[in-house]
Amino acid sequence: MLVAMSINKDYKKILFLKSALTEDNPFMSTEKVLAWLKYRNEEVKVNIEKIKFSEMNKWGFDAATGNLVHDSGRFFSIEGLQIATSWGEVSEWSQPIINQPEIGFLGIITKEIDGILYFLMQAKIEPGNVNYVQLSPTLQATKSNYTQVHKGKKPLYLEYFQDRENNKVLLDQLQSEQGARFLRKRNRNIIIQVEEDIEVHEDFCWVTLGQLKKLIQLDNIVNMDTRTVISGISYGNYTSEVVDFYTSIASPNVKDERFKKGLLKSILDRENSLYSFDDLLSWITEQKAYYDLDVRSIPLKEVKAWHKDDYKIYQEEGKYFSVIGVNVEISNREVMVWSQPLVQPAQEGICAFIVKEIDGIYHFLTQCKLECGNHDILELAPTVQCLTGNYRHTPKGGLPYLDYVLNVKPEQIRYQALQSEEGGRFYREQNQNIIIEADENFPAQLPANYNWITLNQLIMFLKFNNYLNIQARSLISAVTFI
Amino acid sequence: MLVAMSINKDYKKILFLKSALTEDNPFMSTEKVLAWLKYRNEEVKVNIEKIKFSEMNKWGFDAATGNLVHDSGRFFSIEGLQIATSWGEVSEWSQPIINQPEIGFLGIITKEIDGILYFLMQAKIEPGNVNYVQLSPTLQATKSNYTQVHKGKKPLYLEYFQDRENNKVLLDQLQSEQGARFLRKRNRNIIIQVEEDIEVHEDFCWVTLGQLKKLIQLDNIVNMDTRTVISGISYGNYTSEVVDFYTSIASPNVKDERFKKGLLKSILDRENSLYSFDDLLSWITEQKAYYDLDVRSIPLKEVKAWHKDDYKIYQEEGKYFSVIGVNVEISNREVMVWSQPLVQPAQEGICAFIVKEIDGIYHFLTQCKLECGNHDILELAPTVQCLTGNYRHTPKGGLPYLDYVLNVKPEQIRYQALQSEEGGRFYREQNQNIIIEADENFPAQLPANYNWITLNQLIMFLKFNNYLNIQARSLISAVTFI
Repeated sequence: MLVAMSINKDYKKILFLKSALTEDNPFMSTEKVLAWLKYRNEEVKVNIEKIKFSEMNKWGFDAATGNLVHDSGRFFSIEGLQIATSWGEVSEWSQPIINQPEIGFLGIITKEIDGILYFLMQAKIEPGNVNYVQLSPTLQATKSNYTQVHKGKKPLYLEYFQDRENNKVLLDQLQSEQGARFLRKRNRNIIIQVEEDIEVHEDFCWVTLGQLKKLIQLDNIVNMDTRTVISGISYGNYTSEVVDFYTSIASPNVKDERFKKGLLKSILDRENSLYSFDDLLSWITEQKAYYDLDVRSIPLKEVKAWHKDDYKIYQEEGKYFSVIGVNVEISNREVMVWSQPLVQPAQEGICAFIVKEIDGIYHFLTQCKLECGNHDILELAPTVQCLTGNYRHTPKGGLPYLDYVLNVKPEQIRYQALQSEEGGRFYREQNQNIIIEADENFPAQLPANYNWITLNQLIMFLKFNNYLNIQARSLISAVTFI
Repeated sequence: MLVAMSINKDYKKILFLKSALTEDNPFMSTEKVLAWLKYRNEEVKVNIEKIKFSEMNKWGFDAATGNLVHDSGRFFSIEGLQIATSWGEVSEWSQPIINQPEIGFLGIITKEIDGILYFLMQAKIEPGNVNYVQLSPTLQATKSNYTQVHKGKKPLYLEYFQDRENNKVLLDQLQSEQGARFLRKRNRNIIIQVEEDIEVHEDFCWVTLGQLKKLIQLDNIVNMDTRTVISGISYGNYTSEVVDFYTSIASPNVKDERFKKGLLKSILDRENSLYSFDDLLSWITEQKAYYDLDVRSIPLKEVKAWHKDDYKIYQEEGKYFSVIGVNVEISNREVMVWSQPLVQPAQEGICAFIVKEIDGIYHFLTQCKLECGNHDILELAPTVQCLTGNYRHTPKGGLPYLDYVLNVKPEQIRYQALQSEEGGRFYREQNQNIIIEADENFPAQLPANYNWITLNQLIMFLKFNNYLNIQARSLISAVTFI
């Protein structure tokens, strides 16, 4: 039975909106957050060393399957996947994939202080991050952590997420991770609101949603887990009249004011969109029914065109990614040493949304994209997403809109930053995140798997599981109104 | 790109509502539909003979896996599944499962005639049905059928579903089939509206939605595929004032008027519910994160506690179901002969919703139910669903609300009928479908995986994939307002 947690929905959404429009923070200015992260980064000593697989502690290759596994059978493993699909130009292949079947917890605690909602964020070290320390959710926990099966150290603040009687749930969604790397991996993205006073441990601080979104404008400050959690926030669904009122009073004189007010309108307005929500659902159903995706787990040693040496598992042409073993040593208040596999991308990727004003509302050009580890065949993805492919050498016209994005005029770029993928699994992986405003020459004709969707509609899809992929969510988290 | 199909949403929903409130049909009265089905049933000669597996034409056991497969590799196969889960009392088992990875088409053509929406239904023979001929959607097609990969005979009316320029899409959803029997099987449920005149072939007729729902009150007249398609219909989301107006003018003097008007209110009202939609989403997310489901395809011959003889694959205690081979001979206008496997249930099952008026709105007592073939761990299911278990011998209190349903006073039963499962896969499987109104002594305390949900909320979940299971959808299709 659902515990008593029905709350005033509108109030909740207005709280989010107010916080997103607020950068002033009496506890910690945005500059101070940056200085604090820099200090934490300098203070900590991190040594990541690529080692031979045979030198890894507690990790090894299973004799029967060749899978790379932890001795305990826990955490995650690197397995093989055999794929057959009618999507794209390659109809069959096999590849290594990260298998981590448990649903993890990505949780943020919020609290209303003087009418503004603050988010309790953590300065967290992750071995794969280029800069180690980034701003993370209050709680990142695996299922073993949070169910306390193994009686380990209880994660900080876990008890607030378990106490559903006293704390309001503001957001609670299952969302996917990279479908080209993980086999159906999902996390529970959750935001709760506490009423009581709460201890702010070292490494934690309160920031507004507006501050978080400002920080996402910068390279590698806000980690992937934070970005996915806040991407799902709904600010409400309003009639055009109410939207016009909100837009008129919000953020006067900010940089790029016209664009930011346009995004605010696109996220709040429930009335104006090129297609109805039912039309979009029908389009997605059609796309899912049209494409086949058959995936089968296979032993890692049966994966074709991938090889293994002492240090890495790699694709024979050097494409996509490789799996490496690292030794991690972090010296902070205490010294932690462990080894683990990480996935190293072959190169930097690009994730770009093209947006366009249609009937006075910004629409995002969204594609249905099939990836082998997807939970449900395909998910909505940015206009261009070539995370792992060799996009600089893609033949002209090979990937829709890639040329457009690569040759765009600087004044069309509304947002650009390098963002890290999850530093607990990926080795120094960062991707260009870009939002571009289409010019008047943008082609009207779209490929069948592309469509124009408003932010309000994208946020509606986000309420349900596995509709938007992590790359689309990362870009949506960067949408700021101030 | 989405073809031009934006339509007036409200108009579409009012069309559905008007049709659901209409039983008068100048083309074919409800009695005539029944007489026609009876005639079609008498006219056709069906001979279903249980045969040895070795006598099956084009079907056989794969030497390596023991899977029961068609020579062509197409259609479906009977494979093994290994399950580990934290749900329920049995944490590990293996079982046979039907694997049919393609997404099939269940499509109904509708047409507005004199202001009323009519549904083009088919009298269709299926070998497993107890009575062979039932009322089916306009189109039931496998992907091989509708993509015409194999150049077979094109299914009747397929072209209307492919012509998205001229025909409006009124509903388009991917929905699951029995999660205990099928491995992640789904069909595309689609309703389109044509403007033009359309040929009505033999075996087809136009009926109103009201007629369909009246026919679902009877045993085994409307097949499972029709029931799932119409279950997803939304009649719109209205404020209480509008709902009160609609309710006051709808269906005066019908049998059980108070209850039927109550259901109409529950399906139209978007404002009054015990829990908000976001609260329900959070509850489902929590349930999905709480329970583990790990399924692996295994060779059929490795399934434990199941045995095979010449005629059947069966569980060693005679529980659940068995897989049999049949020879089918249907003599109609032409003679068709083929053999195929069918799944035969160990006994009749029961699917029951308990409903209760809360704050003036009927709420349905819905459970999160995990089944091994589910696409996403668990789906919303009726209050009681024991399709295949031995419910008459379940220990007291073993299954929540089963005792309540079995011992209910006759005057609490608002709907009861025997309904067939899919006759193309199941051998004479029929289940009791029941809707019961809770009395004043109904316990207030619910198990954690149960919740009260309005019809309007259930219909909202139905828009998205894999939220309601086939048993819940079958019961929702039986909801009638006249």
